[in-house]
Amino acid sequence: MSPKFKAALIQMTMGADPAANLKKAVQKVEEASAMGANVICLPELFRSQYFCQKEDTAIFDLAETIPGPSTETLCRVAKKTNTVIIASLFEKRAPGLYHNTTAVIGQDGGIAGIYRKMHIPDDPSYYEKYYFAPGDLGFKTFKTSFGTIGVLICWDQWYPEAARLTALKGADILFYPTAIGWHPAEKAQYGADQRDAWRTVQRGHAIANGLFVAAVNRVGHEKPDASSAGLEFWGTSFIADPFGVVLAEGSTDKEEILVQEIDVARIEEVRRNWPFLRDRRIDAFGGITSRFIEE
Amino acid sequence: MSPKFKAALIQMTMGADPAANLKKAVQKVEEASAMGANVICLPELFRSQYFCQKEDTAIFDLAETIPGPSTETLCRVAKKTNTVIIASLFEKRAPGLYHNTTAVIGQDGGIAGIYRKMHIPDDPSYYEKYYFAPGDLGFKTFKTSFGTIGVLICWDQWYPEAARLTALKGADILFYPTAIGWHPAEKAQYGADQRDAWRTVQRGHAIANGLFVAAVNRVGHEKPDASSAGLEFWGTSFIADPFGVVLAEGSTDKEEILVQEIDVARIEEVRRNWPFLRDRRIDAFGGITSRFIEE
Repeated sequence: MSPKFKAALIQMTMGADPAANLKKAVQKVEEASAMGANVICLPELFRSQYFCQKEDTAIFDLAETIPGPSTETLCRVAKKTNTVIIASLFEKRAPGLYHNTTAVIGQDGGIAGIYRKMHIPDDPSYYEKYYFAPGDLGFKTFKTSFGTIGVLICWDQWYPEAARLTALKGADILFYPTAIGWHPAEKAQYGADQRDAWRTVQRGHAIANGLFVAAVNRVGHEKPDASSAGLEFWGTSFIADPFGVVLAEGSTDKEEILVQEIDVARIEEVRRNWPFLRDRRIDAFGGITSRFIEE
Repeated sequence: MSPKFKAALIQMTMGADPAANLKKAVQKVEEASAMGANVICLPELFRSQYFCQKEDTAIFDLAETIPGPSTETLCRVAKKTNTVIIASLFEKRAPGLYHNTTAVIGQDGGIAGIYRKMHIPDDPSYYEKYYFAPGDLGFKTFKTSFGTIGVLICWDQWYPEAARLTALKGADILFYPTAIGWHPAEKAQYGADQRDAWRTVQRGHAIANGLFVAAVNRVGHEKPDASSAGLEFWGTSFIADPFGVVLAEGSTDKEEILVQEIDVARIEEVRRNWPFLRDRRIDAFGGITSRFIEE
């Protein structure tokens, strides 16, 4: 009875026009569906260029409610294609209160639920703390007819606790809509190691938790203004199995649709051989809720 | 004021005679010291072959108290060589009560402290639950003049919680004395992926926590009896930096001493650029102390 399904990751570029980005996303979802995909994940904040490269009150105009215009369109597409769509959006929750939120849209054309990004970064050119209040829904899974889906977002991917808590809620696969790239000035010296660290820590989550991990990143060199160096988004969308083996991986610079069969039975096979969940010392993990532990 | 020190990993084979293994270990510690090492880590249970391949009450004779004969010898060596020695031992705590314990021995020739393996495996040929009671000292760090050292042991390496809790206690480096190898019948099909998963999950701990990770494994094909397939220990001892970059790595089948400079300042440099510790959602991590979370 263990299901198999096909997951698709839409690695794409985003232009200046949000309407055009949505149109492109819909086309690619339909294309992925035609390739046999059942669960389709778009990159983080796919409706726009990565606006967090600068801080500007006018940019909040990009935010929308959930349900709202984007989910209305995507719910129609999900129903029409009989797919689950994972859509990362700039959520307007109330005037002056915004989140980095991912909606999981079911085959029935309804919103199965939302996850609000829990870990919000703030580094040069990634000024997300300005735009997004931290999530208040905790870590979540979504039961679909294709399996139990966990959703985490970008910066969450560096946190083993986020992966673990989502795994403990029964996730078969963790989807990570992402927007990560190189500072052009750093790329030559640090670029390869940065990209490898990003991939490695997520493969580590797959291994430690015995589940699939699927990360989808954008591509393209986006500049918030002409004088800025901008960010070169590094693509490299990938799907790893519960052993950490990379089953599919995208390029660093091209639009691609990765479609990969997910054999849910593989999870139990791997976990029987490496029964990590059995031996967790839950009696001794209380300190995880500490910021730091001085002794 | 950030120190630098040299860490050494003693990748070695173990024979049937515990006295000979101790003698070899002492020679290799002295050799590492001559190579400039300050902190020297031996593999898991280096005094004997990996006895957990079978269950036999007579094997408990190998256990010893701490302090005991092994630490007595190694304390002398630590003082003589002016090094810190990390020594994994089969601890006899009381009649019928044994642990898989690592002693940290200081340059002064005293035992700085012990860590008792928290996560105890039990798989075919790794029957550790028979021999070792789970550790009851929690996760620990040891302040030395060369830096703050965290010690975890083998199966612990699959648990992000263990790495995180040790990191939160200020570790600059996690040492993992290890005994892991291939079942010969599985090696052709799964061997490369198993070894890569083992390395990847630990590199993930280095990245997620922004610290150094040093794992030291034994080599050699050990058979508990002539008719057994035994285990082929895969060596591959390695040291990764806080970015997950492998700085030094051993072979799969040869005795080797890896000596690597550890630049503690690199930790702060990496953490300033990737400030993961700042953003942990400690308000939402309470579920980590659950075995599983049914909803």
